[in-house]
Amino acid sequence: MNELELLERIAARAPGAGLTLGIGDDCAVYRPRGSREDLLFTTDMTIEGVHFRRETHPPEAVGWKTLARGLSDIAAMGGVPRFCLLSLAAAPWADERWIDRFYTGFLRLARKHGVALAGGDLAHAGRVTCDIVVCGSVARGKALRRDGARPGDNIYVSGRLGGSALGLVTGAGAAWKKHLNPEPRIALGRFAREKLHATACMDLSDGLSLDLYRLSKASGVEANLDGTVPVFRGATLHQALDGGEDYELLFTVRPRAQVPPSFESLPLTRIGVIRKGQPGRVEYDGRQLLPRGYDHFGSGKK
Amino acid sequence: MNELELLERIAARAPGAGLTLGIGDDCAVYRPRGSREDLLFTTDMTIEGVHFRRETHPPEAVGWKTLARGLSDIAAMGGVPRFCLLSLAAAPWADERWIDRFYTGFLRLARKHGVALAGGDLAHAGRVTCDIVVCGSVARGKALRRDGARPGDNIYVSGRLGGSALGLVTGAGAAWKKHLNPEPRIALGRFAREKLHATACMDLSDGLSLDLYRLSKASGVEANLDGTVPVFRGATLHQALDGGEDYELLFTVRPRAQVPPSFESLPLTRIGVIRKGQPGRVEYDGRQLLPRGYDHFGSGKK
Repeated sequence: MNELELLERIAARAPGAGLTLGIGDDCAVYRPRGSREDLLFTTDMTIEGVHFRRETHPPEAVGWKTLARGLSDIAAMGGVPRFCLLSLAAAPWADERWIDRFYTGFLRLARKHGVALAGGDLAHAGRVTCDIVVCGSVARGKALRRDGARPGDNIYVSGRLGGSALGLVTGAGAAWKKHLNPEPRIALGRFAREKLHATACMDLSDGLSLDLYRLSKASGVEANLDGTVPVFRGATLHQALDGGEDYELLFTVRPRAQVPPSFESLPLTRIGVIRKGQPGRVEYDGRQLLPRGYDHFGSGKK
Repeated sequence: MNELELLERIAARAPGAGLTLGIGDDCAVYRPRGSREDLLFTTDMTIEGVHFRRETHPPEAVGWKTLARGLSDIAAMGGVPRFCLLSLAAAPWADERWIDRFYTGFLRLARKHGVALAGGDLAHAGRVTCDIVVCGSVARGKALRRDGARPGDNIYVSGRLGGSALGLVTGAGAAWKKHLNPEPRIALGRFAREKLHATACMDLSDGLSLDLYRLSKASGVEANLDGTVPVFRGATLHQALDGGEDYELLFTVRPRAQVPPSFESLPLTRIGVIRKGQPGRVEYDGRQLLPRGYDHFGSGKK
């Protein structure tokens, strides 16, 4: 059973009152009574040995990335982050100084985006385990979703892909920095929603091949990568297609939408087009691209 | 550094825009623009080996308790739970059947309180680690807090204390059931807010001696336990005073408030009175009662 199958099973059993969008997108969407804005909620775990290594990752970077993962989900829905909650289970080796440096990195990113740390929980565990919840807001009914891509839409990505996977190998240079301190694309998500009227959007957390599969599956369409995938300097095509944790945005727009070549000096690249066909199928260079990105819960597939 | 000290340090560094109440109470309070209700948020971790044992705790009970901890915080603020997010990191030993049974217990409690499971995250970890976020709502500006107790107020608790600590020892009978399936006091929290006009309220998660210390400290007052603490049948006075995880409510009311002896067959017992004095000091039987409840993050004190 992989993550997607498990989520589908849980979603089928779970009650859903008051929610306009539940399990399966980047964020849940909640509409408070009488409110002009919808609230977005997302939660992401960051675990020692899975998402970071004690030996190589500075505590500031662990704090930064813990929050960045949640902010990136808010960006994917075209929202603005408002506040967050942090649960931190500290391992025996994580002393006061490590925790202090963790918060330094965490709060640096929080300040950059005006996100309040509203609360949280502290506990002990065998390994450092962080869970972040971010609440964002978006104009009522306007959140970007995964399931809106339609045949004929052009597919875009921001930035250059594979940098984080490369950085994990090299442990140095620009790629390592990209891995340690990913920049959530909050302003771009808002631009894609308000100006480009994107039809679907999600963030690239688990790799293009897996995430595009998810977007196409949710939208009930096929994706054809007939453009050039922008590759991070020094990374392999494999790292760009299957490497995770780039936290760039993947979005689709109507055929006539005018997308500038860059947004705030971040490149925006057309990589393909949406077609009718088998939901979730991704074609690359005339052949099927299998979803090989990282799935924490399954066998590495789907 | 214990949890309270660490939270105070973080709170001092964290930005707080848009929040009417941040770190330090049972829930954070957020006021959406134009909304008639305030939203309450709480997060709690449930960790294998800390909050439950694989050998003794049925998976349904782990799922139930994971959610109950969050619901109890909503009850403590006098709110109504709306939806929740669940992050679950599964250990290698937790197979599909364990996870399925976990969700059975989780969703049973969710349905009982009409709480939607809006989303979550799944990952792998060395030990099972669950993090629950619950969002609740309460009429604008009406949330019960810890810091409102005033000299002369009477102190009450619901139910009988020490049952959960006793159950952990005996592993059988009513006390074990109390430990495995605590009932969040949602209806009582609302009653305390709307009918009793409680001046302060919190849930008993870490034991009366520690939690009453926290309430008195937050309110800047002293507490005098001049009444009889209701003890769960078979439990010791020590378990009733210092045992955690009873998830009953501790609240204070003005001297003239009429508190019935029970609410929906749950006993309500006057255990003491609030006085001017050293903030956080708790007197019992003429002597200081030290805060000995369980503090996951510290040395067991404060």
